[in-house]
Amino acid sequence: MARSINLAVIPGDGIGPEVVAQGLKVLEAVLPADVKVESTSYDLGAKRWHETGETLTDAELERLRGHDAILLGAVGDPTVPSGVLERGLLLKLRFAFEHYVNLRPSRLFPNTASPLAGDPEIDFVVVREGTEGPYVGNGGTMRIGTPAEVATEVSLNTAYGVERVVRDAFERASARPARKLTLVHKNNVLVHAGHLWTRTVERVGREYPDVATDYLHVDAATIFLVTDPGRFDVIVTDNLFGDIITDLAAAITGGIGLAASGNINPTGEFPSMFEPVHGSAPDIAGTGKADPTATVLSVALLLRHLGLEAEAARIEEAVTADLAERDATARSTDAIGDALAA
Amino acid sequence: MARSINLAVIPGDGIGPEVVAQGLKVLEAVLPADVKVESTSYDLGAKRWHETGETLTDAELERLRGHDAILLGAVGDPTVPSGVLERGLLLKLRFAFEHYVNLRPSRLFPNTASPLAGDPEIDFVVVREGTEGPYVGNGGTMRIGTPAEVATEVSLNTAYGVERVVRDAFERASARPARKLTLVHKNNVLVHAGHLWTRTVERVGREYPDVATDYLHVDAATIFLVTDPGRFDVIVTDNLFGDIITDLAAAITGGIGLAASGNINPTGEFPSMFEPVHGSAPDIAGTGKADPTATVLSVALLLRHLGLEAEAARIEEAVTADLAERDATARSTDAIGDALAA
Ligand SMILES: CC(C)[C@H](C(=O)O)[C@@H](O)C(=O)O
Ligand SMILES: CC(C)[C@H](C(=O)O)[C@@H](O)C(=O)O
Repeated sequence: MARSINLAVIPGDGIGPEVVAQGLKVLEAVLPADVKVESTSYDLGAKRWHETGETLTDAELERLRGHDAILLGAVGDPTVPSGVLERGLLLKLRFAFEHYVNLRPSRLFPNTASPLAGDPEIDFVVVREGTEGPYVGNGGTMRIGTPAEVATEVSLNTAYGVERVVRDAFERASARPARKLTLVHKNNVLVHAGHLWTRTVERVGREYPDVATDYLHVDAATIFLVTDPGRFDVIVTDNLFGDIITDLAAAITGGIGLAASGNINPTGEFPSMFEPVHGSAPDIAGTGKADPTATVLSVALLLRHLGLEAEAARIEEAVTADLAERDATARSTDAIGDALAA
Repeated sequence: MARSINLAVIPGDGIGPEVVAQGLKVLEAVLPADVKVESTSYDLGAKRWHETGETLTDAELERLRGHDAILLGAVGDPTVPSGVLERGLLLKLRFAFEHYVNLRPSRLFPNTASPLAGDPEIDFVVVREGTEGPYVGNGGTMRIGTPAEVATEVSLNTAYGVERVVRDAFERASARPARKLTLVHKNNVLVHAGHLWTRTVERVGREYPDVATDYLHVDAATIFLVTDPGRFDVIVTDNLFGDIITDLAAAITGGIGLAASGNINPTGEFPSMFEPVHGSAPDIAGTGKADPTATVLSVALLLRHLGLEAEAARIEEAVTADLAERDATARSTDAIGDALAA
C-alpha cells in the first residue's frame, strides 16, 4: 500500500538550509519505493523576521499542524535580539505542539574523537521535558533599568506534565538492554519541583520493576558525564537541566556536529519536530564546511517516530560506516550527504 | 602587633571532621608567630538534626555572626530528607551572611589527571552569585500528591544583587593577567533575568575598559569547559548555573577532592565561610581515604580574604608541590595533612 509523508521543512538560517538539503537527500534515498515524501518549505527564521518582523504567524502554525512531521535546520543570527526567535518560533512550536519529549541520544561513534581521555564507551539517551519548567516564559521585570529593578523567572511544573514524560522515559528504558533510568534534578534546592519529579519517578517506577532507577543532582551529573559516562543509559530530566546536559553530552561524543534531536509529541495529536542540536553557525555558512550528520541522524529519529524503523536503522548504520571511514581530509557538506545517501 | 583570628568551625558529618582537622593543622602551621587562631566548634549537620531536629538556631546564627570567618567541612548524610540541611543550614548561612560572592577557583595542578585528553591548561575562577536566583526558596506546591499537582520555583534577581557580584567579578578580572570576564547565563530563554545580567555586565564593564567581556549561554559554556577550558579567565554567573558549571569545572581539574570554595561577603559586614566543594562522602568516612586538599585550599582562600596573602600563597605552593610529588601510592587523610603542614 502506497504511503506518503507530508513533511514540513524549516531550513532556517546560516547553515540550516545546507544541512537540511543533505537530510532530505538521505531521506529520499532511504525510503522504499512505495513511500513518497511531499515536502513543503516554510520560510521562517532570522531572514524572515528582518524582512517582516514576524516569527511565526497563527496561520502558519495552523498549516504546520497539518503535517506528519517537521524537519528544522537551524534558526537565528547574531543580529536578532536574543530571545525573539527562541520564544517566537522554536519554543512556540515546542509548546504549541506539546513536544513534551525532547529526545537526545548520545552515542560515541567509532573513530570519533571525544575530548575525554581513554576512549570511553558512551551510549545513552536523554529524555528532556519540553513543555514546562523554567522554559514556560512566565516571568517579568519591574523598574527596568533602575537600581531597584527586579526580574523573575517562574518554573512551572505539573503532575500532568512530569508524569507523561517520566512514563515515556520508563518505556524507552525498559526497551533497552541495560534497563536503567536516572533522574537528574536539583531536588535539594528546588525542593518543590524536585520533589514532584522524585515522587513521580518513584510512583511510575513501581509499574516498571525491571527498570533500575537512580537519582543525581544536576551538578553531580555533569561530573559523571566527564568521568564515567558509561554509567548512563536513559536520563530523564527537566527542560533546563536537559538543555545543559545534552550540550555537554554532545561535546563528549564528538561535538554538536553529530547530535540529533527530536521534539516529540508521543500521542501523535500534533506533528513532531526533528532538528540538529547545533545552531545556525553563520560564521561557516556558505563555505561547505557544515557537517550535515546531525541533521541526517535527526531524519533517522523522524523515520523511527513515523514507524519506519528499518529505514531509521539503515541511516544510523550509514552514519556509523561513514564516520568509521573518515580521515583527516575534510569533506564538504554535500560530499558527506552524498556518501550517506549512497 | 599581635593579631588573633576568631574562627568558627563547622566540622559537620562524614569526612567533614577529618578534612577540617587537616585544614586546621595547616592553618596553625602557616600562621606567623604573632597571629593566633581561636577556634570555636559548632555541632551542626545531620547528626545534630537527628538528635534534636534542629538545623541552625537563631542563637547560633547570632553567635556565628561574631566570628571573623567560618570553616565548614561538609554536612549531610543520606538519611536526612533532601533539602532539610541545604535550606536550613548551608543556604541559611549563605543568605543570612550575604555571601553574594561564591568564589570557586579552577586550576589544573601539575601532575594531576584530568578526564580531558591532551593535558589542557586550566586556570580560571568562577564568581557564582550566592544570594539570589533560583536559590531563594521562593516556590510552592499545590494539590500535592494529586494528578492536578502544580509546583513552582521562582528565580528572583535584583539589580542590587546582580550589580554587586558583577562588580566583584570585574575587580577580580582586572587584577588577573588575562583580564577577561565571561558572563554565563541563558538570556535567550530566561530573558528577564538574563537581560538584567547582560545589561549589568555591559554597564559596569564600561568602567573597566581594560577587561574584555564575552557572553556564553550555559549550555554552550559546558561544551567549552570540556573542549577549550583554556579560553576561560573569570566567569560570572547566576547561583544555579554557577552550581552546575563549578562541579563540571572541578571534574575537569582532577575532581572535587581538590576544589575549594569561599562564600564571601566582600563588605566584611558578615563573616565569610570557606568550604570544600565536595560533600560528606559517608561511604569513605572513617577510612582515612578522604583527600583534605580541597579543605586546605579553602583555608588559603580564608587567609587571603582576611588579608594574609603571603600565607595563602604559601599554602597554595605547598599543595602544588605535594601534588607534583604524588604517585600512585595512596596516602591517608592525615598523612596528606602532615605533608602540607610541613
Ligand atoms: C535555542 C534554544 C531555545 C534551545 C533551548 O534552549 O532549548 C537550544 O539550546 C536547544 O537545546 O535546542
Ligand atoms: C549542597 C547544595 C545546597 C550546594 C549548592 O547547590 O549550592 C552544593 O551543591 C554546592 O555547590 O555548594
